Amino acid sequence: MKPIPALPLQTSEWLNTANPLTLESLKGRVVLIEAFQMLCPGCVSHSLPQAQKARQIFSEGDLAVIGLHTVFEHHEAQGTRAALEAFLHEYRITFPVGIDVRDEGQRLPRTMQTYQMQGTPTTILIDRAGNLRKQKFGRDDDMLIGAEIMALVSESAVDLPDQVADSSSGPKSACDDNGCRIA
Amino acid sequence: MKPIPALPLQTSEWLNTANPLTLESLKGRVVLIEAFQMLCPGCVSHSLPQAQKARQIFSEGDLAVIGLHTVFEHHEAQGTRAALEAFLHEYRITFPVGIDVRDEGQRLPRTMQTYQMQGTPTTILIDRAGNLRKQKFGRDDDMLIGAEIMALVSESAVDLPDQVADSSSGPKSACDDNGCRIA
Amino acid sequence: MKPIPALPLQTSEWLNTANPLTLESLKGRVVLIEAFQMLCPGCVSHSLPQAQKARQIFSEGDLAVIGLHTVFEHHEAQGTRAALEAFLHEYRITFPVGIDVRDEGQRLPRTMQTYQMQGTPTTILIDRAGNLRKQKFGRDDDMLIGAEIMALVSESAVDLPDQVADSSSGPKSACDDNGCRIA
Amino acid sequence: MKPIPALPLQTSEWLNTANPLTLESLKGRVVLIEAFQMLCPGCVSHSLPQAQKARQIFSEGDLAVIGLHTVFEHHEAQGTRAALEAFLHEYRITFPVGIDVRDEGQRLPRTMQTYQMQGTPTTILIDRAGNLRKQKFGRDDDMLIGAEIMALVSESAVDLPDQVADSSSGPKSACDDNGCRIA
Repeated sequence: MKPIPALPLQTSEWLNTANPLTLESLKGRVVLIEAFQMLCPGCVSHSLPQAQKARQIFSEGDLAVIGLHTVFEHHEAQGTRAALEAFLHEYRITFPVGIDVRDEGQRLPRTMQTYQMQGTPTTILIDRAGNLRKQKFGRDDDMLIGAEIMALVSESAVDLPDQVADSSSGPKSACDDNGCRIA
Repeated sequence: MKPIPALPLQTSEWLNTANPLTLESLKGRVVLIEAFQMLCPGCVSHSLPQAQKARQIFSEGDLAVIGLHTVFEHHEAQGTRAALEAFLHEYRITFPVGIDVRDEGQRLPRTMQTYQMQGTPTTILIDRAGNLRKQKFGRDDDMLIGAEIMALVSESAVDLPDQVADSSSGPKSACDDNGCRIA
Repeated sequence: MKPIPALPLQTSEWLNTANPLTLESLKGRVVLIEAFQMLCPGCVSHSLPQAQKARQIFSEGDLAVIGLHTVFEHHEAQGTRAALEAFLHEYRITFPVGIDVRDEGQRLPRTMQTYQMQGTPTTILIDRAGNLRKQKFGRDDDMLIGAEIMALVSESAVDLPDQVADSSSGPKSACDDNGCRIA
Repeated sequence: MKPIPALPLQTSEWLNTANPLTLESLKGRVVLIEAFQMLCPGCVSHSLPQAQKARQIFSEGDLAVIGLHTVFEHHEAQGTRAALEAFLHEYRITFPVGIDVRDEGQRLPRTMQTYQMQGTPTTILIDRAGNLRKQKFGRDDDMLIGAEIMALVSESAVDLPDQVADSSSGPKSACDDNGCRIA
């Protein structure tokens, strides 16, 4: 099986960074993308703290950690830059966060559509060469994600395996302890 | 020392209840008031789950559990009814929640001022006769709050002690694990 | 229904106390008995810490907290005073602990038999007048036990309700997260 | 700096394995050694569950997980094979566990002496070539240990870096939340 290049992120704005980020510009580093909504309980209690921990454990040179605000519900409450800024401030989230492009007439924002995400949180790992290596809806164990990131960090950019991690099967209903599923 | 009657709540709107609540109308029951902000991490992770647990453990006839949304920062993000509605929905909070009246030109909303709260979360206990018996900023242990509520539940409405619980000393800086202090 | 007097504890030794305790001598105070085994995971992770918290929250005058070492398995590993002493020392348990009398030819020690306990941990509450008011196998919520203890503390010794708390239905197999059931 | 070969384990008995293990026989695989005492609270609540999680996450072919019972206190309570067997049974620990050789006249058992361990828990990582790569007293984060194991798993046996992880500085007094230090 061939490596699958990760599709470009489609973002309208970025917070916590002077310049907008692109996956292209992050090549050479492993990328952890945490897709979340600020009112998703499983994102707040589990996945964002996990991403913050990854930011502490791995070096900036090896791993880029970015958030992607993929709002697909409660747009009036969590759909503004001001709301997201307040949230990031209160939860002490300092890594760059992009806002997924709202697509008029569509329920899901653009990157969420392209990546066929099932809801939030969704954890994505991209290898140094820019290939999608993991996409998982719901929560993952800290030790597992630590091992998965390090496996990619340990690869050289020219030495890429070709398997692609599959998506998980997750819970069935809207928001639960694991996350907010697209119903 | 004389019992001190709890001052009236000043609210602009109520959610999760057909009719606005007043402390007067709740007399005869013990009242647990959880003052919170939807973007206060300590409220979300600790105090609101604690209030939800109290709602499960004590009977409606003995204990009224109500939330009070006391927004004193990030008004644009958490100051609308829509934002609060989305939050209550996602976090499965079903007890009545009043919105503290915003006071133009003042930082703190009205009930927060009257009660001289130090920040969020603030936990308040009112006895069956309507007296303020506890007001605490920051987080409390589950076993302690269970004992304190039951102590008040065990009193008859005509048999009231006259001590009044004091406020606690809390952490010193804005939002931390315990809550969001008025800086 | 009549109040049921709690049956006497049958103990061979006591640790953490100069003098052996009897329920008779504790009359006038509420008594929390935590029946445990030092190698029961649910006792170690949940019930003994809960008893320690109760010891901190309630006054000595209102509540006596005692442990009861009810060994019904692994006698060679946890059946000696030395083993229990080492355990209490390492886990910083300072309340009095009695050792349930081993009954030659019987699997269960004597108090465990008399109280018809289902396994460990078993939490027992006795009111100020010496009546059994709660006996529960498995783990209980901190807020609930705090409320239950305070309900008994709030009773005067001469003003006793006559209901008796029933035993719970617990998990089905030997040791699990909740405790060690007599299989 | 040269790689330092891990010194041989000195064990009197093994549980959970038909044949005694040696580091020599484990060459080619990464080895996680969890040195513990069954009455060390930090071992029970944190380090042994962490080793169990590592056993689940990594394959047997990549990682050997072994326990080492390094009793340096309370010999009468935790120094027998029967006590350890009961403990392993109740805590569902199924990976091989060796018993560090008791050294008459010495406080510390032999492997503990040779490795100059500071107490329990001590976590040790050995690479595929048999070199000591990490030795840490006290508790470690799950994500960190996951990453460290995977870094070693990703090395080929002939491609070894030469740095050696140093020991940590740990807490100062006997047993606390982190572990039991040799006082």
